[in-house]
Amino acid sequence: MSGNSFGKLFTVTTFGESHGLALGCIVDGCPPGLPLNEADIQVELDRRKPGQSRYTTQRREADAVKILSGVFEGKTTGTPIGLLIENTDQRSKDYANIKDQFRPAHADYTYMHKYGVRDYRGGGRSSARETAMRVAAGAIAKKYLREVLGVQVRGYLSQLGPIAIETVDWAQVPQNPFFCPDASKVPEMEAYMQALNKEGNSIGAKITVVANGVPPGLGEPVFDRLDADLAHGLMSINAVKGVEIGAGFSCVAQKGTEHRDELTPDGFLSNHAGGILGGISSGQDIVAHLALKPTSSLHLPGRSIDVHGNPIEVVTKGRHDPCVGIRATPIAEAMMAIVLMDHLLRHRGQNADVVHQIPDITRR
Amino acid sequence: MSGNSFGKLFTVTTFGESHGLALGCIVDGCPPGLPLNEADIQVELDRRKPGQSRYTTQRREADAVKILSGVFEGKTTGTPIGLLIENTDQRSKDYANIKDQFRPAHADYTYMHKYGVRDYRGGGRSSARETAMRVAAGAIAKKYLREVLGVQVRGYLSQLGPIAIETVDWAQVPQNPFFCPDASKVPEMEAYMQALNKEGNSIGAKITVVANGVPPGLGEPVFDRLDADLAHGLMSINAVKGVEIGAGFSCVAQKGTEHRDELTPDGFLSNHAGGILGGISSGQDIVAHLALKPTSSLHLPGRSIDVHGNPIEVVTKGRHDPCVGIRATPIAEAMMAIVLMDHLLRHRGQNADVVHQIPDITRR
Amino acid sequence: MSGNSFGKLFTVTTFGESHGLALGCIVDGCPPGLPLNEADIQVELDRRKPGQSRYTTQRREADAVKILSGVFEGKTTGTPIGLLIENTDQRSKDYANIKDQFRPAHADYTYMHKYGVRDYRGGGRSSARETAMRVAAGAIAKKYLREVLGVQVRGYLSQLGPIAIETVDWAQVPQNPFFCPDASKVPEMEAYMQALNKEGNSIGAKITVVANGVPPGLGEPVFDRLDADLAHGLMSINAVKGVEIGAGFSCVAQKGTEHRDELTPDGFLSNHAGGILGGISSGQDIVAHLALKPTSSLHLPGRSIDVHGNPIEVVTKGRHDPCVGIRATPIAEAMMAIVLMDHLLRHRGQNADVVHQIPDITRR
Amino acid sequence: MSGNSFGKLFTVTTFGESHGLALGCIVDGCPPGLPLNEADIQVELDRRKPGQSRYTTQRREADAVKILSGVFEGKTTGTPIGLLIENTDQRSKDYANIKDQFRPAHADYTYMHKYGVRDYRGGGRSSARETAMRVAAGAIAKKYLREVLGVQVRGYLSQLGPIAIETVDWAQVPQNPFFCPDASKVPEMEAYMQALNKEGNSIGAKITVVANGVPPGLGEPVFDRLDADLAHGLMSINAVKGVEIGAGFSCVAQKGTEHRDELTPDGFLSNHAGGILGGISSGQDIVAHLALKPTSSLHLPGRSIDVHGNPIEVVTKGRHDPCVGIRATPIAEAMMAIVLMDHLLRHRGQNADVVHQIPDITRR
Repeated sequence: MSGNSFGKLFTVTTFGESHGLALGCIVDGCPPGLPLNEADIQVELDRRKPGQSRYTTQRREADAVKILSGVFEGKTTGTPIGLLIENTDQRSKDYANIKDQFRPAHADYTYMHKYGVRDYRGGGRSSARETAMRVAAGAIAKKYLREVLGVQVRGYLSQLGPIAIETVDWAQVPQNPFFCPDASKVPEMEAYMQALNKEGNSIGAKITVVANGVPPGLGEPVFDRLDADLAHGLMSINAVKGVEIGAGFSCVAQKGTEHRDELTPDGFLSNHAGGILGGISSGQDIVAHLALKPTSSLHLPGRSIDVHGNPIEVVTKGRHDPCVGIRATPIAEAMMAIVLMDHLLRHRGQNADVVHQIPDITRR
Repeated sequence: MSGNSFGKLFTVTTFGESHGLALGCIVDGCPPGLPLNEADIQVELDRRKPGQSRYTTQRREADAVKILSGVFEGKTTGTPIGLLIENTDQRSKDYANIKDQFRPAHADYTYMHKYGVRDYRGGGRSSARETAMRVAAGAIAKKYLREVLGVQVRGYLSQLGPIAIETVDWAQVPQNPFFCPDASKVPEMEAYMQALNKEGNSIGAKITVVANGVPPGLGEPVFDRLDADLAHGLMSINAVKGVEIGAGFSCVAQKGTEHRDELTPDGFLSNHAGGILGGISSGQDIVAHLALKPTSSLHLPGRSIDVHGNPIEVVTKGRHDPCVGIRATPIAEAMMAIVLMDHLLRHRGQNADVVHQIPDITRR
Repeated sequence: MSGNSFGKLFTVTTFGESHGLALGCIVDGCPPGLPLNEADIQVELDRRKPGQSRYTTQRREADAVKILSGVFEGKTTGTPIGLLIENTDQRSKDYANIKDQFRPAHADYTYMHKYGVRDYRGGGRSSARETAMRVAAGAIAKKYLREVLGVQVRGYLSQLGPIAIETVDWAQVPQNPFFCPDASKVPEMEAYMQALNKEGNSIGAKITVVANGVPPGLGEPVFDRLDADLAHGLMSINAVKGVEIGAGFSCVAQKGTEHRDELTPDGFLSNHAGGILGGISSGQDIVAHLALKPTSSLHLPGRSIDVHGNPIEVVTKGRHDPCVGIRATPIAEAMMAIVLMDHLLRHRGQNADVVHQIPDITRR
Repeated sequence: MSGNSFGKLFTVTTFGESHGLALGCIVDGCPPGLPLNEADIQVELDRRKPGQSRYTTQRREADAVKILSGVFEGKTTGTPIGLLIENTDQRSKDYANIKDQFRPAHADYTYMHKYGVRDYRGGGRSSARETAMRVAAGAIAKKYLREVLGVQVRGYLSQLGPIAIETVDWAQVPQNPFFCPDASKVPEMEAYMQALNKEGNSIGAKITVVANGVPPGLGEPVFDRLDADLAHGLMSINAVKGVEIGAGFSCVAQKGTEHRDELTPDGFLSNHAGGILGGISSGQDIVAHLALKPTSSLHLPGRSIDVHGNPIEVVTKGRHDPCVGIRATPIAEAMMAIVLMDHLLRHRGQNADVVHQIPDITRR
């Protein structure tokens, strides 16, 4: 596959540029019989949608999704689901001035080296706008996982620049524009973002995603481990520079006695593994953390070169998120859901006739 | 593909268990005409080989590789290269006592849930012994990258438990049993490992891998980004719990003006991106960091359950690395080389007729 | 991949049902820099379009294609090309009566067994209407092959029921509604089809596709042979029941001295191989033949069962092609072009640095 | 994947050349818990083995297979199964004289164009010797299909040159060296082959493969239809030039009323479809026919060129099958079994929760 597909049995293929006519995707491999309509998908898209607070880009996109195939009389048919979102608020002329420029930390320079041409309007294919389709596809995966398996995939902002959360109250997540689970940190985040906007700068963030209720046994040994595929999926989100499973980088300084999650008949005693052992789900919560770099588009000038190799100064105009991490929570949830869904189908394919004789200590 | 293959055009498929007859792999897609013999591969295997210092497992495996196909008159033919390593020093009886036990932090419990059966001897397929074949396959990728493209892929131990290195002197890496690039830290590491062995405990580690000389343009947008495939490959190594590209998790607290790597006609001014922008190589060094958890096999007892769900106490016998990170450097190099090789072939396939008209600032 | 994608580097993924809102596809992996607009694709779609003669279905579809992404300022960018065709002339009520029926030789019965549900309107996903998107994707492959490599992919009807052509005059193919290269047979075909329509029956056909100018070296040994992938692609076209390469089934009664294509410095002396030796193109014309079964939708009653297992008599209403083979020529060309394009990219990826030292006898 | 793998969930990857050290393969995705030992595989290899009658090559290979992984205590574990066959009777010096020659109808010329080098000993990778590993892998698929699903995959020689069989008596197939199901034709075949050997010529053949007991529902719509994947697998066998499903090319002259297989509560009334409708199994016998070209290696001189482009006369020495079709029956069975196994796993993955409410008329 040529790079725009993800998943082996539950396969998502996307197309579309930031300032093209439309974004679209094909979800291939969704099991038949799942009740599905556009509202099921729209609710997730609305969580990612720009222009919902002063802390995200002011581009106004309805992000209204259309289901073009694969659903009949309100249920999935098992055939590919075509999804489409038309772009409505492009302001491509904002980008005319960067046609011959390479913006620092953007894909401009690398795309030109790869392809010899690039759609310079709003980043073209490298724009985070592409992630809308991942959220749409992920909404289908999330619905199946939730309704058929009772699996819940959800995430939160665990750090905004220097501000790390201290407690996780899931009920708080939808109550603020940051997906922040710690209400006590929200005023601090608001103040920080306002100062940042005034400065014209941007900031990084950390996201945590958790899947609850995943049955033990998902994942393949060796290359297609569940954690490896999660790392693939999550690192493929724009601006992500790091992925951790469970204890992540803190395991570097952990001793074996501290890290190992002991088992009892009533469950595991800890979850440093993040719910995955030997690349296979253990039934514990699957936990992943992502680091997102600060937005590359800044109103503060930076040094660069133009297509001829001359030194220039770049100031990015246009509308941008000052912290791409803020809207990344639904995207990370979507990718985790897609990975789980794919592994569920693969697992069922190979292991349908396994008779399980050992206790599932996470379900007691 | 069913989970034991990696790469789309340069594809590595492995088989073999820790205490089975042999380990093997098929490297499919290697370009023809590359001079190759067993010594080229053996040199890399010897770097990973157990039993070379008192800080690694005392299992004695020659890890002698045989090339069974794909090479004719000293050169690759373009057809699949079959590689085989026979196991010679299994002591399977060491494992009879854990037949009905689930060792904490091992894949025992999850394999049983997935497959209903498991080869309990030394972890079977979940053993890090499998990584020998990755090193073998990676040796071929490294050789091609080095000899045809001038790309150098190398790594080092950047942290051992609490001991972080402070300087990188590549010349030091092969001079000590830790792959440590900072000679001043080696005595500290030795002392730490001796105390750890006495204690019967294990410790985590951090590895850094760097590819130098990678041409700009490798990687695919969206899902098969170069960084996403690196994350996939590196996270698929046993015991890895975190992967960072470039600045990694430190980007969370970085502002845009700090993180963005400015461009000048004479090159980039920094490399927080780790050599990848928009999922595509920029020509700068590709830099990745990996976190490896402490070895799960400990001589210190831990709580667990048996296959019937009864609580038990587990003490792992057998021979084990007290720090799996110590031998992980060649494995991480191998996976990075395999990913780069695969993306090189994919890039050449799609973009063979691109005429490059922009300057390559990293080659000046 | 879940069954609706084809090709490894040049990958076509389609969606859409006969009576849904739209058909679409994503062409992933098209090289950048190819001049492309909707007219380039429309011209091929118009060749397949229904309602163009009295010998095809009277459904009136404009089959107007929209390019939604992947093209910028008139050239491909190397990113995925999204294509869309809206359905405009569905008459779904024609199908209400077959909701609970299984039409003989249709996919009704097998889809219900597979998925438990089916979109019964016009065959849903199993309809040959899906092939419009293959023709659209194939138009891009054909354009690249033609303009960049000088490869010409073209086809003709070689047999209509009992009427086999005797001579091939490529200039005649576009001059009649059958894609028949033998003008002397056209009146016979017209008379045959008129009698068939009156009878309410349908008939099979045979199509031949030829690629001229294919460079030697395309194809992979063993499983992904060029002929094997052609067989895959061509057999995946609705109604196809047989595929031959070169001599095809006539080789069964051939002796080695007759079948083998001898080589001279001035070229091959025959082409029983159909341009493929050992799964790899030889530089000769690639020649394939396809057998298409008679349309399954008949106005003549047939025995069947309903969803409850009761015996019924089925008479298909609606508008149908009396010979699906008539419109199959552009579809077969499209699939051959897609296969060649995919193998071209794969070949260039692996063998970019091969220095060819042997003569190409087909280019003299 | 790079061309030497087949199947998406049940994946077979092979390596090895005719005159290399060994042939091998990895079977990835086999369900766990299947009783398996070397004898299960050897029995199939012995059916394909050369040197068993005067009508096949006199090369003496024991083709003794070793299972190197994936089986523990007599059962498959779900991990990859490594298989190895060492070559024992190479006579590579037979080939020294063809080092610089291109044998007509062989892959010599095309391999040189593709790779720039070739292993000229006995065809190297293009040799039919590679099919031994397909038979080995297929033996595992056949065993699973037979023991777990009750599916029987078996084949026969349906035509040898001009001699077509007239009746099918399965009991006769193992009673003669031709896999001929029509005892009355065996003397004729023997006489034909003796005359052919004397002449130094070779002849084509036709093989028929049938799978009985396949449940309805296997196969994917559109590109990965069961018939398309069968065509892929069967056409990838050395020397195959044509593949038919069910009626195959005879459907060209069939009318719809003749071709369509009517349904009754007690089953289908005919099987022109060959057990596949809309790319999905119907529960009827899956029937495929293959055309195999005459062996290209002849003792009769043929015109060709050498690597410098000079005209030469080629006489192939060495030991060869005068009719490659004779030993092709087990290979064709193996490929059909592999395709069915792969589709079984894929189907179970996606459609595990489908509740089937319609009658299966083929199981009454």
